[in-house]
Amino acid sequence: MGVIYLDHLAATPLHPRVKEAMIHHIETVFGNPSTDNQIGQPAEQALEQARARVAALINAEPKEVVFNSGGTESVNHAIKGIAIGLREKGRHIITSNIEHKSVLNSLRTLRLLDYRVTSLDVDKYGLVDPAEVEKAITPETILISIMLANNEIGTIEPIADIARIAKQRKVAMHTDAVAATGIIPVDVQELGVNLLSLAANQFYGPPGVGALFIRKGTPIWPLIDGGLQENKRRAGAENLIGIVGLGMAAEMAALEMPERLPRIKALKDRLAKGLTEGIPEIKINGHPTQCLPHLFSVSVEYIEGESLVMMLDEEGIIVATRSACASGSLRASHVLIGTGLGHALAQGTLVFTLGIDNTEADIDKVIRVMPGIVQTLREMSPLYKKEHAS
Amino acid sequence: MGVIYLDHLAATPLHPRVKEAMIHHIETVFGNPSTDNQIGQPAEQALEQARARVAALINAEPKEVVFNSGGTESVNHAIKGIAIGLREKGRHIITSNIEHKSVLNSLRTLRLLDYRVTSLDVDKYGLVDPAEVEKAITPETILISIMLANNEIGTIEPIADIARIAKQRKVAMHTDAVAATGIIPVDVQELGVNLLSLAANQFYGPPGVGALFIRKGTPIWPLIDGGLQENKRRAGAENLIGIVGLGMAAEMAALEMPERLPRIKALKDRLAKGLTEGIPEIKINGHPTQCLPHLFSVSVEYIEGESLVMMLDEEGIIVATRSACASGSLRASHVLIGTGLGHALAQGTLVFTLGIDNTEADIDKVIRVMPGIVQTLREMSPLYKKEHAS
Repeated sequence: MGVIYLDHLAATPLHPRVKEAMIHHIETVFGNPSTDNQIGQPAEQALEQARARVAALINAEPKEVVFNSGGTESVNHAIKGIAIGLREKGRHIITSNIEHKSVLNSLRTLRLLDYRVTSLDVDKYGLVDPAEVEKAITPETILISIMLANNEIGTIEPIADIARIAKQRKVAMHTDAVAATGIIPVDVQELGVNLLSLAANQFYGPPGVGALFIRKGTPIWPLIDGGLQENKRRAGAENLIGIVGLGMAAEMAALEMPERLPRIKALKDRLAKGLTEGIPEIKINGHPTQCLPHLFSVSVEYIEGESLVMMLDEEGIIVATRSACASGSLRASHVLIGTGLGHALAQGTLVFTLGIDNTEADIDKVIRVMPGIVQTLREMSPLYKKEHAS
Repeated sequence: MGVIYLDHLAATPLHPRVKEAMIHHIETVFGNPSTDNQIGQPAEQALEQARARVAALINAEPKEVVFNSGGTESVNHAIKGIAIGLREKGRHIITSNIEHKSVLNSLRTLRLLDYRVTSLDVDKYGLVDPAEVEKAITPETILISIMLANNEIGTIEPIADIARIAKQRKVAMHTDAVAATGIIPVDVQELGVNLLSLAANQFYGPPGVGALFIRKGTPIWPLIDGGLQENKRRAGAENLIGIVGLGMAAEMAALEMPERLPRIKALKDRLAKGLTEGIPEIKINGHPTQCLPHLFSVSVEYIEGESLVMMLDEEGIIVATRSACASGSLRASHVLIGTGLGHALAQGTLVFTLGIDNTEADIDKVIRVMPGIVQTLREMSPLYKKEHAS
């Protein structure tokens, strides 16, 4: 029995072209891009080719792309780098209460260093209100960090509107675009942000490699200090094998997106229709239209998400109840609680993230087996039994 | 004509077993180690196998090994993590003036945040005096960071002695062991340090991946905040392909070190003898015996190291004049200046770092061609001509 993988937010399989590029690099290049000799030159060429490819994907200039170890490092660099770079201007940062843990925990660290954070509430769809952002700005505000798309409910935030306000008020703007980049079109010119975080493992590239877009002139300090790599913005020998994979993943995402998008969207629609018909009391999380095309989050009452995940796993269906970064934590998702979902419903949540290898047959199997599993689990719930005893 | 590669500090070629392990991983595993399902499990197993291998190389417990993006990140984490973790205790850090840029520039950043740094002088061999370290300790001191072996002159510092003092005075001790680990035996129990940095690209593993040894109970804060990975000490999806390579490189280093060491040492002795005979006025940098077995640094008056490197490159010999991290900088090395070398000599420096693929024939070619190149370059020097006009 083949596995039906519907947890592409935790990790995407490598695109065949990505595998090929990485293996070719492993077999032929080992030099250090910083050394100007016949061993270093092919390494530098590989590095700059990857940079151009990532820049093209997000409509940036190659110089504005800084490679690093992934989305989490990008976010840490954006937030802490601005905090240090602009520490003389002020120590106030604005964010939302449904950001990724990399944002929230970077800000927790900054609080220890006497920075002040305003965390904005979102509406029931997970949307941040640009007017609320504007109201929160003070003369001390140095950074606004709001995600482009939420990694648990898929809601896409009005980043261009917020960035416009940030620019008017001369505040730097970062968007965590990790869940969105490579999935939907992401254009740093249209978005108007100063900083944007992305990661290869969201779009068929390797894990542990990503990039931070830093618009020219952004007053940011390095997170990782040392040598002169990455135009002095990120020190340390480059993970060139991973970067080559990221570059190829970016190239393929740009090339294939027009085909991928309608296909994935159709699969998601099929899943949504099938599940709401099979389990009418299901609650769909996130914004109904302004959302990631590959992510579908649902909550069911009386059920533990963990149990649902395990029973689906037994059927060969891999799906998540929370983000991989929070695995091992037993608390209900701060994102779902942030949208006003009660703990009981938040606990009973599944996040499906679809990928380019998924088929209609995969979706149909989920639609077929899930209602029965939900019913079985419900009948094991003391609360359900009590409320439904007749 | 084959290239003679003598710049193993900039990058090492991948060990055949490392290539094999990485390619096998790329072809067979893509899951996220944090996800507890049939896709995530092989990833978690690969992660923990690599952790055990790195732990074995340095005689640590697996739990004490935190994977990251390389030596530079390790150093940044050690220094900044202790700075934040112990900020209530004090804000004073002790280091030496010949550390790697990752140490010096991490401390530069901490100075902006009101930390105070004492940077100790070294003797003409580059040795730090443990008595000087002891004298520099104040009640405010929270960290001592001294490298295990210098990456430009090869001198091995008396880390065990310094760590003993640090322990008596209840100060945390970090050693940057990037240039040493995988080359010479490194044992965290014998060294007695709390923190030790290492990088795969120094011992035939891939670039951009490394680990920080964190002894149990060390009060360190994360450098990269976010999810729960690496036992909450380093967030972000793991660069698992790189980590698998690091693990295999550690395994092969441990296994092959007894053979590698005498072979490399014999090659270095051959190089030293041949060059001092061919160019009698050469100055050898670093400690004559307490030094890395694969690193040989020499300085020649009247010559620019850059020119020497270029002319050797034309002969198919790859060697460095300064560390790859400082390439692009035109200043004389702070390490050589730190040992008291004048600017003229420091400029005319070559650093040979030998590797497991080098042969006696490689060394003999260097010995054969270098005296002529030195003579040619000297005769182009106006200063040399003036002083040697008869």
